[in-house]
Amino acid sequence: MRETDEVKVLVTGGAGFLGSRLARVLLDRGQIGGRSVREMVLADMASPAADLLSDPRVRFHQGFLAEAAAALSREAFDVVFHLAAAVSGECEADFDLGLRANIDSTRGLLEALRAAGNRPRLIFASSVAVFGNDPGLPMPPVIRDNTLPTPQSSYGTQKFICEQLVADYSRKGFLEGRSARLMTVVVRPGQPNAAASGFLSSIIREPLHGQFAVCPVAPETAVALASPTLTMRGLIAAAEAQAEAFGGRVALNLPALTIRVGEMLDALEQVAGRAARERVRFEHDPVIHRFVESWPAVFENARAARLGLTPDPDFPSIIRQFIREDLSLSGT
Amino acid sequence: MRETDEVKVLVTGGAGFLGSRLARVLLDRGQIGGRSVREMVLADMASPAADLLSDPRVRFHQGFLAEAAAALSREAFDVVFHLAAAVSGECEADFDLGLRANIDSTRGLLEALRAAGNRPRLIFASSVAVFGNDPGLPMPPVIRDNTLPTPQSSYGTQKFICEQLVADYSRKGFLEGRSARLMTVVVRPGQPNAAASGFLSSIIREPLHGQFAVCPVAPETAVALASPTLTMRGLIAAAEAQAEAFGGRVALNLPALTIRVGEMLDALEQVAGRAARERVRFEHDPVIHRFVESWPAVFENARAARLGLTPDPDFPSIIRQFIREDLSLSGT
Repeated sequence: MRETDEVKVLVTGGAGFLGSRLARVLLDRGQIGGRSVREMVLADMASPAADLLSDPRVRFHQGFLAEAAAALSREAFDVVFHLAAAVSGECEADFDLGLRANIDSTRGLLEALRAAGNRPRLIFASSVAVFGNDPGLPMPPVIRDNTLPTPQSSYGTQKFICEQLVADYSRKGFLEGRSARLMTVVVRPGQPNAAASGFLSSIIREPLHGQFAVCPVAPETAVALASPTLTMRGLIAAAEAQAEAFGGRVALNLPALTIRVGEMLDALEQVAGRAARERVRFEHDPVIHRFVESWPAVFENARAARLGLTPDPDFPSIIRQFIREDLSLSGT
Repeated sequence: MRETDEVKVLVTGGAGFLGSRLARVLLDRGQIGGRSVREMVLADMASPAADLLSDPRVRFHQGFLAEAAAALSREAFDVVFHLAAAVSGECEADFDLGLRANIDSTRGLLEALRAAGNRPRLIFASSVAVFGNDPGLPMPPVIRDNTLPTPQSSYGTQKFICEQLVADYSRKGFLEGRSARLMTVVVRPGQPNAAASGFLSSIIREPLHGQFAVCPVAPETAVALASPTLTMRGLIAAAEAQAEAFGGRVALNLPALTIRVGEMLDALEQVAGRAARERVRFEHDPVIHRFVESWPAVFENARAARLGLTPDPDFPSIIRQFIREDLSLSGT
């Protein structure tokens, strides 16, 4: 980052759930790393929400990221959050889409930032989906930052490949990149997306709307979750950390709350009553079950803790965050 | 692989040192996995040696691999050895060349094999260069197949990225891919190439030719080596192993002889006399030193051993292999 008092920020996927939320948090704070946010470009295929577009600091760059390199290289961004991606379900259904939307787009962005020549700080949103049970190498019971990822989905593979690109562009001095692996973000508002993890939001969100939801895995299935607020905090901490504190070019596993699906429903009952819980029906889905089983649930988060990042304290607080911040906006 | 009695083999980089050697070994054996080699295509930018071209089973496919996808997809190969690559020194000097020659070419090949639709067995020659000392995560003293690679060169990064692609194309059932990580192959005949490891051959080869050589690292530097013969054996074993025996989709570290550079010169003196050793002059090169220091030297090779692969017994035997097989062809 240039040592000026103002920064120009790029958020790719800036119209998505996480991108919009990150944009709002940064615009509300008005600063990152003590420097004020002068300008923010939201890059996405879809248009961002009206409240973002009406902020005088915000510009919208519409288009497919892989084809935006030339345009973006003419801007000297100081901080870039790269959130744009095709999600796990899409990538598994359409292999070519995943290669294009995740690998080619990231390469296009990295080339644009390299061509700009001002060595911006780049935060790449990687994913817990880099981990999985390889047939020859089962995951250890506890995942550390130095655990070898053996992705068992195209999405996870593509995220892990992008981590490697970000690390090498950084080593070469083209930019200052940092990869942060997001946990499954719960509770997402709005319609279910094509992520295999989508049900982990649906089984809370739909009952709170008085609607029914299907849980495709058994109650004893353990998962690693983080609330939207903690996820934003992780991305911003990764951007603000001094290089030494971030600790090298290996991706950072953001902190996770480990919880069983049954315990999530206990928390739903505690917060919203027995009737809410009874709106969730169990119906086994072998495809989703296989995905979820292949994700790790228990993390050692010492490195994240050194950056001041801790998991959500419990699941009722995650549900209350959703009710407070998103429920009214979240008609399904 | 199709269950027929004959196979059609593709060797990319088939005009290079390892590719030519592999082609000769396979043509001499006449079979792989008990099925006879009916046809062999050598793909390369340069023309293969005359002895290979004169074999009636051999065809030459000239061109840049990334652009050969359409042509190669019309052939139904049973076994593919993917050795074509830009080497470490080239990739460090020309970042874009490395992306093109290593990542784009591999993607082109994988797409061609996927389009062919017959699910060939693919052996990808990866490299020990995937390992390195990340500033935040030093390597463990002993490297295992489940050690997290943190490449510290563009070449190593690109090899590791291709391993991920090979694993995901395999998981999707497009092909049956296996990545084998080659150790530094010593003694290479001919002219030095642009690999940072080139001196490990030069300090033996040149003195045997009565010429002087420069060693850019200190005598106590430890390295992980394998002879050309053992490297060929490793590639063929990876191709012939049953899926269960190969053990999953994580890359296999081929066995290594761990030795200090000073001990290599002791062996040179033992095999070729004191005068040969005295033709090696030490002259520190900080760039090469940093590369070599970032490579691991000690491996745990239990998985390779289960495939019947063991390291070279000692360094004099590696020198004698070179004298027997390559010295006469190796004018420098």
